[in-house]
Amino acid sequence: MTDQVNNAEPTEAQPDSHPQSSSRRKFLRESAALTGGSVLAAAAPAALAEPLPIPTSNKFLGRGVVSVPYGKPSKFEGDILRRNVEWLTPDTIASISFSPIQDLHGIITPGGLHFERYHGGCPDVDPNQHLLVIHGKVKNPLKLTREDLRRFPQHTGIHFLECPANGGMEWKGVQMDSIQFTHGMLSCSEWTGVKLTTLMEAAGVDPDATWMLAEGGDASAMTRSLPLPGAKDQYGQEIPDGMEMLKDAMVVYAQNGEPLRPEQGHPIRLMIPGMEANVSVKWLRRLKFGDAPWVHREENSRYTDLMPDGKARQFSFYQEANSVITYPCPDKRVKQHGFQEIRGLAWSGRGKITHVDVSVDGGKNWREAKLMDPVLPKALTRFTIPWEWNGEESLLVSRAVDETGYVQPTLKQLRDARGTNNIYHKNSQQVWRVMPDGEVKNVQIVNV
Amino acid sequence: MTDQVNNAEPTEAQPDSHPQSSSRRKFLRESAALTGGSVLAAAAPAALAEPLPIPTSNKFLGRGVVSVPYGKPSKFEGDILRRNVEWLTPDTIASISFSPIQDLHGIITPGGLHFERYHGGCPDVDPNQHLLVIHGKVKNPLKLTREDLRRFPQHTGIHFLECPANGGMEWKGVQMDSIQFTHGMLSCSEWTGVKLTTLMEAAGVDPDATWMLAEGGDASAMTRSLPLPGAKDQYGQEIPDGMEMLKDAMVVYAQNGEPLRPEQGHPIRLMIPGMEANVSVKWLRRLKFGDAPWVHREENSRYTDLMPDGKARQFSFYQEANSVITYPCPDKRVKQHGFQEIRGLAWSGRGKITHVDVSVDGGKNWREAKLMDPVLPKALTRFTIPWEWNGEESLLVSRAVDETGYVQPTLKQLRDARGTNNIYHKNSQQVWRVMPDGEVKNVQIVNV
Repeated sequence: MTDQVNNAEPTEAQPDSHPQSSSRRKFLRESAALTGGSVLAAAAPAALAEPLPIPTSNKFLGRGVVSVPYGKPSKFEGDILRRNVEWLTPDTIASISFSPIQDLHGIITPGGLHFERYHGGCPDVDPNQHLLVIHGKVKNPLKLTREDLRRFPQHTGIHFLECPANGGMEWKGVQMDSIQFTHGMLSCSEWTGVKLTTLMEAAGVDPDATWMLAEGGDASAMTRSLPLPGAKDQYGQEIPDGMEMLKDAMVVYAQNGEPLRPEQGHPIRLMIPGMEANVSVKWLRRLKFGDAPWVHREENSRYTDLMPDGKARQFSFYQEANSVITYPCPDKRVKQHGFQEIRGLAWSGRGKITHVDVSVDGGKNWREAKLMDPVLPKALTRFTIPWEWNGEESLLVSRAVDETGYVQPTLKQLRDARGTNNIYHKNSQQVWRVMPDGEVKNVQIVNV
Repeated sequence: MTDQVNNAEPTEAQPDSHPQSSSRRKFLRESAALTGGSVLAAAAPAALAEPLPIPTSNKFLGRGVVSVPYGKPSKFEGDILRRNVEWLTPDTIASISFSPIQDLHGIITPGGLHFERYHGGCPDVDPNQHLLVIHGKVKNPLKLTREDLRRFPQHTGIHFLECPANGGMEWKGVQMDSIQFTHGMLSCSEWTGVKLTTLMEAAGVDPDATWMLAEGGDASAMTRSLPLPGAKDQYGQEIPDGMEMLKDAMVVYAQNGEPLRPEQGHPIRLMIPGMEANVSVKWLRRLKFGDAPWVHREENSRYTDLMPDGKARQFSFYQEANSVITYPCPDKRVKQHGFQEIRGLAWSGRGKITHVDVSVDGGKNWREAKLMDPVLPKALTRFTIPWEWNGEESLLVSRAVDETGYVQPTLKQLRDARGTNNIYHKNSQQVWRVMPDGEVKNVQIVNV
């Protein structure tokens, strides 16, 4: 071996007794055991045959800092984009975009690739004009600027957001041969703002108030009724989710460190971790406290689950435990035999993911996947598991369990409980079929 | 109170016995105790006097999803930018930009605002042409594409990066009345890639190898010599940091979920958590294993600490425990009397932050700040503490402690140990003077 570029060689080679090399060898042995040592040879490419030429980037001065005061992705990564399904929202303007989760790693979604869902398009709101009003059953009705909100004690959390219609196209059968379209209304960010309880205290919310209305500053005036502890529905039935709503909810002004992106409700939005994303009302301009749900247009026309008996599940806020394999998947085929690392995402609106199992035979046999740190409540959790693939047709499926003990259901189990007329909350196990040529297909195995 | 916009009023007001309101009241009381209840009245603005007009954004349809497949910040946030100091790098091209940490929240830095440091400018590297060579004292020299690297078992971690010259302008006295310029070469991201030990195993690194050379694909061929366990310097002195380097190091291809940004070494960089950022070589193209440091140009001309006795500390890789108050600060003055939440960042290259104290009288009295979740090793950690300010001149300072028990030094302590000829590793306590009019000045109190 010779050096490929002009580096000074060692000036003073020292005699060296390597007193620590045995501990280093031990460390390497342990690391190898963890990663499944023998698979590495399979993953490693052909050995280096000859010195490399010096690339252009080593020869010419690059650009300086002044030209890009706010950075962008490399021009070579132009295919990693949010995408829409043209036939899905035949509105004046397209209103759903999906995150390219097949191309993402870890748990944080960069702001530019967070999925989008609009009921009246994405407004450009001036943060210096925008106001949040807190009124209704309160002692001190408040009118707050973003500047006011930033003065309150701050709270931060890394949490996923998922549209409850994620996968909704798939209830009746396979529609989309793409993970971006079956699961891409899913993102995860660090959110910073003020806890709802802090604002409720400042406004002096009436102890008898059991419901909160949240209204957005967009063209749909997107509005949801949210239960507080003690809430009952229009028919007198108790809503058990009020305490959980209240405990975690925030009014947020920052996402991944910077001000919210316009697509995520700039300058402020409600953020209710673990619940369907539409309740985290964007461009938030009003919180009203009362003692019954408001039955607003946007919660009448959407967000109830039509059951087999013709009745509708209402106020089904939670995103229950879910998971999906992001590699291999229809958008990321297998390109070679041998060692693969199966990778995926798991998440639960009820808290932490405790366990993910993976099957490569459609659910007959399962192995436990490794969860990558950090495992945070109501956040995406990344799992991995090694797999040796030698060209046989395989049925890949993952199954998540959360800290409540809830096990992600099969599609058959979910259909048995909810029928096939529903759009929302399709959290069933996703099966990918790996073909002998490495192509991956979206399939549904309903009897496992 | 009346509604300000046209929402349906409750259709069926229900009698409601509020069985859970006492538990809700208890929850609110507890939350209030945590956030310091009485301060909230001070933070709350004037009560709402009259109904609000309906804003334009509620009246007109916003944009659809197709127009912005990769999102950008709001046009109203155009002043949150990386900035350079014109006199600092009088090169052909400016080569340092500072993150606007005064405007950031939480611990994640969005990719577009990550600080920059170039020795030969920022190249545009084609990920499909780029190669990483692993050679020297190895059994199987390897030539790896990014695609090859993605096949290896994956590792992810949220870690800060800090240039060791952060604050370097301030050793001899106050220079910059701005936190962006005193502390802005500091960012934190989620990094994903392959553990160095995994690659070493695949290449069959010789057990006698005690040093690794890492070379970048930029115009400076930025190169560092990095100790492995058993490493000695050119004079036969043992380098104790080898095991720590090896344990955490990764070759990464993703940052906050997406491919690395060009500014952070796209398509691949070395990532050695906790160490000065320059060792995390960007646009990484070569790892060579040997048994002595290479004494390359970029580590001869820089990155040693000139001590009072004229000798230089070499291989001083660690970023020791540090902290800074991000509000109030020179860039974010205090605008009103009364309740303030002092906020800041703490970090340590040795592991987790365990404790942050804050003083408002220049270090005479200290109170313990609250650390916000998650507290992760070698990551930024956010701290907050409430403060009642009534216009008196105040000296704000923070002091971090890490899990090794190391306490962030005062400037006097740091100068006593290292003199004033140094540029690097200035991790001393930063004092901000809050003036009676709310302006904030950068001051140095050397005798506390």
